[in-house]
Amino acid sequence: MDPVVFILNGPNLNLLGLREPAVYGSSTLADVEALARATGDRLGLVVECRQSNHEGDLVDWIQEARTRAQGIVLNAGALTHTSVAIHDAIRGVGVPTIEVHISNVHARESFRHHSYISPVAAGVIVGLGLDGYDLALQALARRIKRPDPSEPITA
Amino acid sequence: MDPVVFILNGPNLNLLGLREPAVYGSSTLADVEALARATGDRLGLVVECRQSNHEGDLVDWIQEARTRAQGIVLNAGALTHTSVAIHDAIRGVGVPTIEVHISNVHARESFRHHSYISPVAAGVIVGLGLDGYDLALQALARRIKRPDPSEPITA
Amino acid sequence: MDPVVFILNGPNLNLLGLREPAVYGSSTLADVEALARATGDRLGLVVECRQSNHEGDLVDWIQEARTRAQGIVLNAGALTHTSVAIHDAIRGVGVPTIEVHISNVHARESFRHHSYISPVAAGVIVGLGLDGYDLALQALARRIKRPDPSEPITA
Amino acid sequence: MDPVVFILNGPNLNLLGLREPAVYGSSTLADVEALARATGDRLGLVVECRQSNHEGDLVDWIQEARTRAQGIVLNAGALTHTSVAIHDAIRGVGVPTIEVHISNVHARESFRHHSYISPVAAGVIVGLGLDGYDLALQALARRIKRPDPSEPITA
Amino acid sequence: MDPVVFILNGPNLNLLGLREPAVYGSSTLADVEALARATGDRLGLVVECRQSNHEGDLVDWIQEARTRAQGIVLNAGALTHTSVAIHDAIRGVGVPTIEVHISNVHARESFRHHSYISPVAAGVIVGLGLDGYDLALQALARRIKRPDPSEPITA
Amino acid sequence: MDPVVFILNGPNLNLLGLREPAVYGSSTLADVEALARATGDRLGLVVECRQSNHEGDLVDWIQEARTRAQGIVLNAGALTHTSVAIHDAIRGVGVPTIEVHISNVHARESFRHHSYISPVAAGVIVGLGLDGYDLALQALARRIKRPDPSEPITA
Amino acid sequence: MDPVVFILNGPNLNLLGLREPAVYGSSTLADVEALARATGDRLGLVVECRQSNHEGDLVDWIQEARTRAQGIVLNAGALTHTSVAIHDAIRGVGVPTIEVHISNVHARESFRHHSYISPVAAGVIVGLGLDGYDLALQALARRIKRPDPSEPITA
Amino acid sequence: MDPVVFILNGPNLNLLGLREPAVYGSSTLADVEALARATGDRLGLVVECRQSNHEGDLVDWIQEARTRAQGIVLNAGALTHTSVAIHDAIRGVGVPTIEVHISNVHARESFRHHSYISPVAAGVIVGLGLDGYDLALQALARRIKRPDPSEPITA
Amino acid sequence: MDPVVFILNGPNLNLLGLREPAVYGSSTLADVEALARATGDRLGLVVECRQSNHEGDLVDWIQEARTRAQGIVLNAGALTHTSVAIHDAIRGVGVPTIEVHISNVHARESFRHHSYISPVAAGVIVGLGLDGYDLALQALARRIKRPDPSEPITA
Amino acid sequence: MDPVVFILNGPNLNLLGLREPAVYGSSTLADVEALARATGDRLGLVVECRQSNHEGDLVDWIQEARTRAQGIVLNAGALTHTSVAIHDAIRGVGVPTIEVHISNVHARESFRHHSYISPVAAGVIVGLGLDGYDLALQALARRIKRPDPSEPITA
Amino acid sequence: MDPVVFILNGPNLNLLGLREPAVYGSSTLADVEALARATGDRLGLVVECRQSNHEGDLVDWIQEARTRAQGIVLNAGALTHTSVAIHDAIRGVGVPTIEVHISNVHARESFRHHSYISPVAAGVIVGLGLDGYDLALQALARRIKRPDPSEPITA
Amino acid sequence: MDPVVFILNGPNLNLLGLREPAVYGSSTLADVEALARATGDRLGLVVECRQSNHEGDLVDWIQEARTRAQGIVLNAGALTHTSVAIHDAIRGVGVPTIEVHISNVHARESFRHHSYISPVAAGVIVGLGLDGYDLALQALARRIKRPDPSEPITA
Repeated sequence: MDPVVFILNGPNLNLLGLREPAVYGSSTLADVEALARATGDRLGLVVECRQSNHEGDLVDWIQEARTRAQGIVLNAGALTHTSVAIHDAIRGVGVPTIEVHISNVHARESFRHHSYISPVAAGVIVGLGLDGYDLALQALARRIKRPDPSEPITA
Repeated sequence: MDPVVFILNGPNLNLLGLREPAVYGSSTLADVEALARATGDRLGLVVECRQSNHEGDLVDWIQEARTRAQGIVLNAGALTHTSVAIHDAIRGVGVPTIEVHISNVHARESFRHHSYISPVAAGVIVGLGLDGYDLALQALARRIKRPDPSEPITA
Repeated sequence: MDPVVFILNGPNLNLLGLREPAVYGSSTLADVEALARATGDRLGLVVECRQSNHEGDLVDWIQEARTRAQGIVLNAGALTHTSVAIHDAIRGVGVPTIEVHISNVHARESFRHHSYISPVAAGVIVGLGLDGYDLALQALARRIKRPDPSEPITA
Repeated sequence: MDPVVFILNGPNLNLLGLREPAVYGSSTLADVEALARATGDRLGLVVECRQSNHEGDLVDWIQEARTRAQGIVLNAGALTHTSVAIHDAIRGVGVPTIEVHISNVHARESFRHHSYISPVAAGVIVGLGLDGYDLALQALARRIKRPDPSEPITA
Repeated sequence: MDPVVFILNGPNLNLLGLREPAVYGSSTLADVEALARATGDRLGLVVECRQSNHEGDLVDWIQEARTRAQGIVLNAGALTHTSVAIHDAIRGVGVPTIEVHISNVHARESFRHHSYISPVAAGVIVGLGLDGYDLALQALARRIKRPDPSEPITA
Repeated sequence: MDPVVFILNGPNLNLLGLREPAVYGSSTLADVEALARATGDRLGLVVECRQSNHEGDLVDWIQEARTRAQGIVLNAGALTHTSVAIHDAIRGVGVPTIEVHISNVHARESFRHHSYISPVAAGVIVGLGLDGYDLALQALARRIKRPDPSEPITA
Repeated sequence: MDPVVFILNGPNLNLLGLREPAVYGSSTLADVEALARATGDRLGLVVECRQSNHEGDLVDWIQEARTRAQGIVLNAGALTHTSVAIHDAIRGVGVPTIEVHISNVHARESFRHHSYISPVAAGVIVGLGLDGYDLALQALARRIKRPDPSEPITA
Repeated sequence: MDPVVFILNGPNLNLLGLREPAVYGSSTLADVEALARATGDRLGLVVECRQSNHEGDLVDWIQEARTRAQGIVLNAGALTHTSVAIHDAIRGVGVPTIEVHISNVHARESFRHHSYISPVAAGVIVGLGLDGYDLALQALARRIKRPDPSEPITA
Repeated sequence: MDPVVFILNGPNLNLLGLREPAVYGSSTLADVEALARATGDRLGLVVECRQSNHEGDLVDWIQEARTRAQGIVLNAGALTHTSVAIHDAIRGVGVPTIEVHISNVHARESFRHHSYISPVAAGVIVGLGLDGYDLALQALARRIKRPDPSEPITA
Repeated sequence: MDPVVFILNGPNLNLLGLREPAVYGSSTLADVEALARATGDRLGLVVECRQSNHEGDLVDWIQEARTRAQGIVLNAGALTHTSVAIHDAIRGVGVPTIEVHISNVHARESFRHHSYISPVAAGVIVGLGLDGYDLALQALARRIKRPDPSEPITA
Repeated sequence: MDPVVFILNGPNLNLLGLREPAVYGSSTLADVEALARATGDRLGLVVECRQSNHEGDLVDWIQEARTRAQGIVLNAGALTHTSVAIHDAIRGVGVPTIEVHISNVHARESFRHHSYISPVAAGVIVGLGLDGYDLALQALARRIKRPDPSEPITA
Repeated sequence: MDPVVFILNGPNLNLLGLREPAVYGSSTLADVEALARATGDRLGLVVECRQSNHEGDLVDWIQEARTRAQGIVLNAGALTHTSVAIHDAIRGVGVPTIEVHISNVHARESFRHHSYISPVAAGVIVGLGLDGYDLALQALARRIKRPDPSEPITA
């Protein structure tokens, strides 16, 4: 059976396409999730998508991944900067997690420059728009097939 | 003619594969550059690769990109954390630049958590090993074709 | 139909009147909400009141205001000082929001001096007790009628 | 005889209506003071208005309020962020003082986020434009009639 | 009837025994709760145990203790370092609360060195493993019987 | 022969019962030490008690414990916040040391919030009054019998 | 002719005896000045006393001392903590200046712990109440007679 | 009629030539002002000179410049480092203002390294002695003739 | 019998007169103590003088003062800036303590600007050379006779 | 022979006129250098101009000035904020150096507010556009003729 | 007679060889002192060795060196980071003192990165193990023979 | 063949003997290098000396040492405080490196107190003048013969 990857989106990402289209484009969260599932099909991954405005839901889902998923793509939104609980959950479950941000958080307010998630993430992709989800899925697909990161890469 | 992309590596990245293989793998910089050129071929990009331990060289090359390249993949190594000159060069030339780090800088010493490059980068990819270069090239290829980041993405 | 205004109270405000009456008086949250509805009637506003100890609920309700309300009176309690998610929600929905605190937070512990809500609020009212809710409703009522803040005020 | 309330404006507020009308509107300080006196009449308060660019004048006037006024509405302008002398004067005279700011200081430069006045103010109203003066007068009027802030409010 | 004590565990403590057994041992949360109930029986306390990954649940339960419990043993996990809401709830309800941490938070990352709970806790027990819960129950039992902490202790 | 535990008290703890009885109770240091010895008897520990106002004495005694004791209960008083020498001594001798504070240091001045001892302590007990010594002895007794902290606890 | 000493008091010291008598006593500024003149007579000093709430007045008077006085006793009140201009004036005129504070500023808010005056003062006397003025006059009288501070003191 | 330029000097600059001649030279403020007027004549500018030790006077004069002057040369002395009111006045009146310091403030105490004036100044000249006033007048003269700073300069 | 006052000098004050005579003068500690005893005779105080380089000795002596002295003059030297233990001792014994420094610590390195002793001192005298001891004895003599500091002073 | 002055420009100043013309104007570095040489002719100075993106080149050239030049005009660009090596070179060679910045660095990002060059510069000119170079040459010309800065200036 | 050099070791250095041999080796303090005396013989120095866990002892001994020794080798251990008293003693006695640390303190916890001793030391040797003592003795021997450090060195 | 040691000097060390002879003496870099080679001969080391003002050169040379040298003596001058690239190079090549500073950097400006090199250095020698190079060579010679630092030292 194909490996399962969770795509978890945090607070306010359900507003995607509904607010500030000049910045975020007009794609909605549903569009993003449809595309991610299509990418998953292409890469041989089963992609499950969820969104919540509640920190506790994200913690619950990361814990659920411990027994159900081989990877997580996580855009925790504002919780990125405040949630030690998500940090602990990622560390506790040991499932490779790639942190994604649609906008370039380093070009915004200083309170968005620090992430509690980055130190425990398998990787971080910032500022590449919705493409970030696609690239994160690719990176997870490679990692699932080639789990030893010190192994030489090949074309 | 195919668009040109510069892959610029900063101080000590010429040691790749020669030091700490448990962390960085045994691929050398030459291997990385060969793979990047292959990826470029696949994506329709002309990839030019350079490395220097001198901040001034990186500034010179970024300036050169102003008239010669459509994108830059930049791993400035240690200069990431100290070089305002590179920050200014990227902003001055207006060529989309994706910052790449092989290791997860956010899981290392605190002086590696701040990047002068991130605020002026088109995107940042951290901790995904040598795959980071490949993903950055993909992101640049898409951006060159679809320069308006607010446009809806499609499968 | 009259404009709708949400009055949203955050963690522990359901204890109003039950704790520290010397500080907060003996009015309960139910009393406050009844008065606010009466004020709303007087001002021609439909006032809806909710309280939760969950950050996610407040984010959900602020998002709901996007299509259902013309203004928000928000006392986020302790979340004022920690919630970037509420900051983002207010910014995302574009509904004028007035931040209210019953006690003078600037005369208390230093961790209460910073608010993530203030920079995105239409206004802030601090330390005026339960009158703060009433004044905030007045300010919203005026703003709904006179949305351009640069217009001269008249008696 | 009706209670007296001082409206004290600090540095540069005499420029109101003369600078940056897009931000501050076209009402002048004279307009504001006329409206405040009208509001005072409605609320049964004698309103006295003064403005100075000198910190010492504001301290003198706050001291004068000790024997002549029942309340103060204070917009200390830039001195808000630098004057310990005004802090001490307010604490010394014991006259309830409501701090008002026309613009949202929390959305501006970081040196405007700290107020030496707030910890000793009876309340703070920020960002509600010229309406802030009107709301402050209302709050003072209620407080003069109902000085015990722990008493239940009534419609 | 015997006094009631709540044992409240926060985010990720439901992973106990499932993650990092070298650090946390192989006892699960269910084991801990069973032992706590046994200790409670020995000390004449009714012990109720709950766990949640949601900050709001912990606030709700602390509020519930106001009328239902004589003491709280609280291991808020990661929320220890970020939750002003829990701080306020403890202060608001006035039920003696002992903060427990299984591991030595002071020997870990610097963001774990500050606790919003400690200043309002009746006591803090850190780094003594699962024994911390047992010792906290003892301390609460003594305090319930000898509420004046200035009274001399006796053998 | 029974294991030996040192109870070491630092500066000003000889004033116990002589100063601020409303805070610290009327038990003297001699009372505390008598009770600790009684607790020791109950737990099968030989308890030796010492107090000094000299940092150097505490370092000497901790070093002495290296060959003479199986555990230390240490209330270093004010030296907690300033003594790197005690930190080094504890780390150097390898004898499990439990840090005790009678009052809740986290509810006092900010310079009491940091402890140089905590990172090298086997555990920390704060704010539980004189009971802290008793609970620390219990914790040491268990640890001496069950030195592997990852072992499951049993009733 | 006897040497002249200025006693300069800054903002709010004219409220002395009128506010917070439990803290500051019931002596008014006039009493203080009368006593200071009497002390001056006893020490052979002509004492001139002034008070202002304006920083500029204090600077003017310190400059005036350059040609008219041999010493200054300065209680700059709140300006102590904010005025670089007074610092510069003292340094510019070269008249020995003793800084006096009636209350113990180091036991109050942290913004009162720093003085711009102390580094350029000939001495500082804090927390000794109104006696501080008397002791400062004594110190100045000795210094005027024995200007070389390295000279041995004699009974 | 020739354009008017104000030369405004702040606290203690009236001591010029009277204090520390080794540092500041023996030219007095009157000399400086005479020279500035001569320079003005040469450049076709009417130069008006004022000095005050009062922050409020400087604010008043900057406001006066709004309708009476085309440029300001401002040496605010110690107020440079503390006055938000002067910052606001400069921003409020929109008259180009060049900040001058006679000595090199960056080589002195750290509290002189920050200027509230610099961010709103048209330019800053530091450490060039009395020549700074002359150079500032030249710069203003050019700017008055060539107000668009992006226009190419010519010999 | 006359009241007893301790004069306690800390580390390196035994070098007085032996080092840096240009700064400290040529009086030795013995001279200072002799003068202090003479002053004591004049004021009706029994003056006992001690010096130690050991923090613990100072703590011991302050504790001894609890039952033997009515006042303390304390120059703790370098321990001023580092000793929480002395802070606690002064607070614990309740004997009025005046802190003295011979040199102006505020004009020296920044680590000498903070004193742990000042917040618990009855007063502080800084920078007045050896006269500081004499003035401190006077202040204590007055306080012993007039213990209520709010009482009006008289000539 | 006429005195020699070096005009040294650091990283990215070779982009002048090529980037952000709205901010920097359309004059190129070559234009600036031509004008500077013309100004030099007028002032009797031989002006030599160089630019490099390499910190080491700037250090080399400043060292070369030790024996070849009487003054330096230095716009170190981004290296202003990061280069201790340039600071040391200026101090080491003892050639008067005037720091120039075209834009107002104090109105930009906070990392541009600190200069390692200013403390060792003979003067600093900021924000006056390309005129800054001209004014700096004038200031150097005067200084070369009148090297004692304390000498009175004359018309 | 040969010059005398003191070798002073601070807290916990008496544990050398007894703790963490993998880090510190198996040489004891006695071995180190024997070798130092042998080195002293070779260099023509009389070496006296002492160790204490008491800050006061180190201060006493440094003071004793004023009249008895020509140099000091000081490893103050943990007191390096906390003792202003030792700083003052070294400065007070004027005996050249070389600070030695066996391990590389800069590669350890951040609280070991600051030394109060370094600014007053004649030199600092860090991380070279026990060789550090030997090298320090050599450096002192040379300095005693060639006290002017600006004199050219010769082979 | 004898082991090779590189002596690398950074920016401005080529000015040695040419600047500030009172501080640095009159020996030139050539003298220092000649002496170092003589010391090398005595110790059986081949000493190669290089100097550059370019960070990149130092990185290149440290990388070169990876295959050509057994040790490095590095005085990186100003780059000590700013170069993460040199830090990385030292760590990357694994050649023991001893950091040397001629002057006592800890007695100079605060920006010289932090070294990026120290944490990765085998040892640090500060403030011992040109002798520092000689002592560093000795330390390297011993380490090359006795690479296990935990081995007991012998006479």
